[in-house]
Amino acid sequence: MGQVAAELRERVFRANRELAGSGLVQGTFGNVSEVDRGAGLFVIKPSGVPYEDQTPDHMVPVSLETGEVLDSRFRPSSDTPTHLELYRAFPCGGIVHTHSEAASAFAQARLPVRCMGTTHADHFRGDVPVTRPLTREEVEGEYERNTGLVIVECFRQGALSPEEVPAVLVAQHGPFTWGADAFQAVEHARILEYVARMEAKVRLLAPYAPRPAAFLVDRHFLRKHGRDAYYGQR
Amino acid sequence: MGQVAAELRERVFRANRELAGSGLVQGTFGNVSEVDRGAGLFVIKPSGVPYEDQTPDHMVPVSLETGEVLDSRFRPSSDTPTHLELYRAFPCGGIVHTHSEAASAFAQARLPVRCMGTTHADHFRGDVPVTRPLTREEVEGEYERNTGLVIVECFRQGALSPEEVPAVLVAQHGPFTWGADAFQAVEHARILEYVARMEAKVRLLAPYAPRPAAFLVDRHFLRKHGRDAYYGQR
Amino acid sequence: MGQVAAELRERVFRANRELAGSGLVQGTFGNVSEVDRGAGLFVIKPSGVPYEDQTPDHMVPVSLETGEVLDSRFRPSSDTPTHLELYRAFPCGGIVHTHSEAASAFAQARLPVRCMGTTHADHFRGDVPVTRPLTREEVEGEYERNTGLVIVECFRQGALSPEEVPAVLVAQHGPFTWGADAFQAVEHARILEYVARMEAKVRLLAPYAPRPAAFLVDRHFLRKHGRDAYYGQR
Amino acid sequence: MGQVAAELRERVFRANRELAGSGLVQGTFGNVSEVDRGAGLFVIKPSGVPYEDQTPDHMVPVSLETGEVLDSRFRPSSDTPTHLELYRAFPCGGIVHTHSEAASAFAQARLPVRCMGTTHADHFRGDVPVTRPLTREEVEGEYERNTGLVIVECFRQGALSPEEVPAVLVAQHGPFTWGADAFQAVEHARILEYVARMEAKVRLLAPYAPRPAAFLVDRHFLRKHGRDAYYGQR
Repeated sequence: MGQVAAELRERVFRANRELAGSGLVQGTFGNVSEVDRGAGLFVIKPSGVPYEDQTPDHMVPVSLETGEVLDSRFRPSSDTPTHLELYRAFPCGGIVHTHSEAASAFAQARLPVRCMGTTHADHFRGDVPVTRPLTREEVEGEYERNTGLVIVECFRQGALSPEEVPAVLVAQHGPFTWGADAFQAVEHARILEYVARMEAKVRLLAPYAPRPAAFLVDRHFLRKHGRDAYYGQR
Repeated sequence: MGQVAAELRERVFRANRELAGSGLVQGTFGNVSEVDRGAGLFVIKPSGVPYEDQTPDHMVPVSLETGEVLDSRFRPSSDTPTHLELYRAFPCGGIVHTHSEAASAFAQARLPVRCMGTTHADHFRGDVPVTRPLTREEVEGEYERNTGLVIVECFRQGALSPEEVPAVLVAQHGPFTWGADAFQAVEHARILEYVARMEAKVRLLAPYAPRPAAFLVDRHFLRKHGRDAYYGQR
Repeated sequence: MGQVAAELRERVFRANRELAGSGLVQGTFGNVSEVDRGAGLFVIKPSGVPYEDQTPDHMVPVSLETGEVLDSRFRPSSDTPTHLELYRAFPCGGIVHTHSEAASAFAQARLPVRCMGTTHADHFRGDVPVTRPLTREEVEGEYERNTGLVIVECFRQGALSPEEVPAVLVAQHGPFTWGADAFQAVEHARILEYVARMEAKVRLLAPYAPRPAAFLVDRHFLRKHGRDAYYGQR
Repeated sequence: MGQVAAELRERVFRANRELAGSGLVQGTFGNVSEVDRGAGLFVIKPSGVPYEDQTPDHMVPVSLETGEVLDSRFRPSSDTPTHLELYRAFPCGGIVHTHSEAASAFAQARLPVRCMGTTHADHFRGDVPVTRPLTREEVEGEYERNTGLVIVECFRQGALSPEEVPAVLVAQHGPFTWGADAFQAVEHARILEYVARMEAKVRLLAPYAPRPAAFLVDRHFLRKHGRDAYYGQR
């Protein structure tokens, strides 16, 4: 495991640093992880260590099977069980959690970030949903694990694809985003915050503005994703 | 073509860098181009290359006549056909596209950025209009070219002068601005974002505030533009 | 007293510097103090000296018993009597006062910053209250001392715990926060501003959004505070 | 005149630089001047020269009596006649004009920045008023001079003291502020923008929030100004 974990620790360290530089988190808020499914583990930020004090060595490997810490003297992020459930249910490579301002405000308002334009559609093929609140039993029991399960339920009940909409708002809490790897998950956290700020303006300026047609959303999403993508260099 | 393109690539590279420094774009969003009408070409940002990785060599020359790439191994911005149609229809020297936050929110809300004061009138002689949404045929066909054609239609149908109002909001998408050259187009992108932020506040604070009289708008616009301008050093 | 005061001056100097770096204060606005209850004194920022000109020597020791300046040629912050009353009534180690934008806007609007999500609950176990306005007698008399007394009254009448809710908004004025020491008080000032910005968005986007259940607030607050806390490294 | 103007040019250059660093202006927007009443002149920013290109030599002396440029090859700010009328009518030492975002939004909304709390009252003893719009004759005639006269009219008709309220919003345009010297005028421009941002939040969050009592406003204003001030070091 040593070699895999060393490289992954380095990557997760860098992705956490990128998250800190994005302005989406402060102090010890938020966390990034990345998974190595072949090795059966993911690596995540330690709990409560300020971003400026972190080193690759602080990053904590966790077993995908058991959820237990592998070979580290640090405690992983308290949100680790949420990441674990998401890795188990969703085909993603990296996960980010923040309390970024606008996205968390939508989570507190219990409103989805609607897909109102092409900036959103370039990254998310439809609204970013908000989960139901957790029940008393879920909060007082395995709270962080249940947070992950409620996210998965939200996608299942809404028949949403976690690959097409790699983001969610946990009610009264904040956003989780994911992606092919930790860096794309950070990018999605950044874009989500950006489109949430725009959506806040739209809701206030023109609450009844019509939504973009599905063919416009699809055109933009598919311009960047999937078989027929034609954005970027080849 | 070599010498012309080399100088233009350098200028367009610098204008893209200025755009990146303005905070109006992040990652690979947005693009700047500049035209050399005598040489029959314009130069534009490459597709999907982050601003921090760009060099003058990445900038892609495109034929004004055919829309084809001239002498470059890079693919031009996916929005290149939009720029092409604008250069064909409007007497401008440079074009900028961004997804800047406030201007894009107005595009998503499908509201014009009204001319409510002198900051706006110093640069735009009237409201910055918002286009109609593209039809399914326009989106599923030559989408980026049709985006340009819809902008041109918006100005023709509204009897607007692209020299007096060098900016537009594409519905559910974002702003395009233009100017005498690439740098003025960047400046217009910056001002548009600034006045859009102010206009958002005005709409929320005083939805029925009266508009400035035409003589005030004209005084400010003409103080800086045209034959009788008296702003700046001579 | 010399040794205690020298160390405390150094700490209070650094905490004021941290406050200045947080963007919560500008010019000479705001102040930080820290108490040494054993030594019977607290140390506070001088009055009207810009942050960039301050040195540890500018920090002013004040007697907890008499409120008088101890061994300094500088005048303490004009808000010193407010700090004194708070140290007398609340079991805290450090106090911060700012006019930070969003929190002061709530103070001017005379609205509490409601606890609407986990970012808030991680630090404040419930709403951050707003005091009643001071009476004419209170304002024209010992104004700064009365400000402290009105804060204490607000907590007593609301049966609030200053340890569970280490922050208040003084009506038509701005926030005071406190904590175990000066640095935690600064952290609370920062978080208060952050959640006030989110709460402003929530109030505008969804004025009737339901509040989080008490069990969610408690879970988050107690995850970080008290006997059963499990956040951070041990 | 040489010696006086040289020192004043240096001061006005520095105050313009401070204004540029404040984020209140961009490009060539805005201007600062300072008067020497003994020498019968004031010095002001040149027209249309970007802040980063300015040197003390660019600063233009103007006669208080005739309004003519004294000994400079540069053209003064196009707003020079406004400054001239203000120096003639108001007992101030420095003047600043910006198009800062929130204050200009209030000018466009034609709403005063109401005095809603102590941050405002520390600097302005009451609301910052908004002028009437200029008439067609005033705009098409000596526009910039008439702008000054309309400000003076606003204060006369409202029986306002320019020493107690050193700021105004020109309708559909933006703010002018003044002070004992150019640097205090810059400080007032900064505070005005800050309280305008807060007042925008208050108007949206609590449109019917009561105003602070006059005794609170007076206490704060007089704590920092006039005979009985007790703020700062002596």
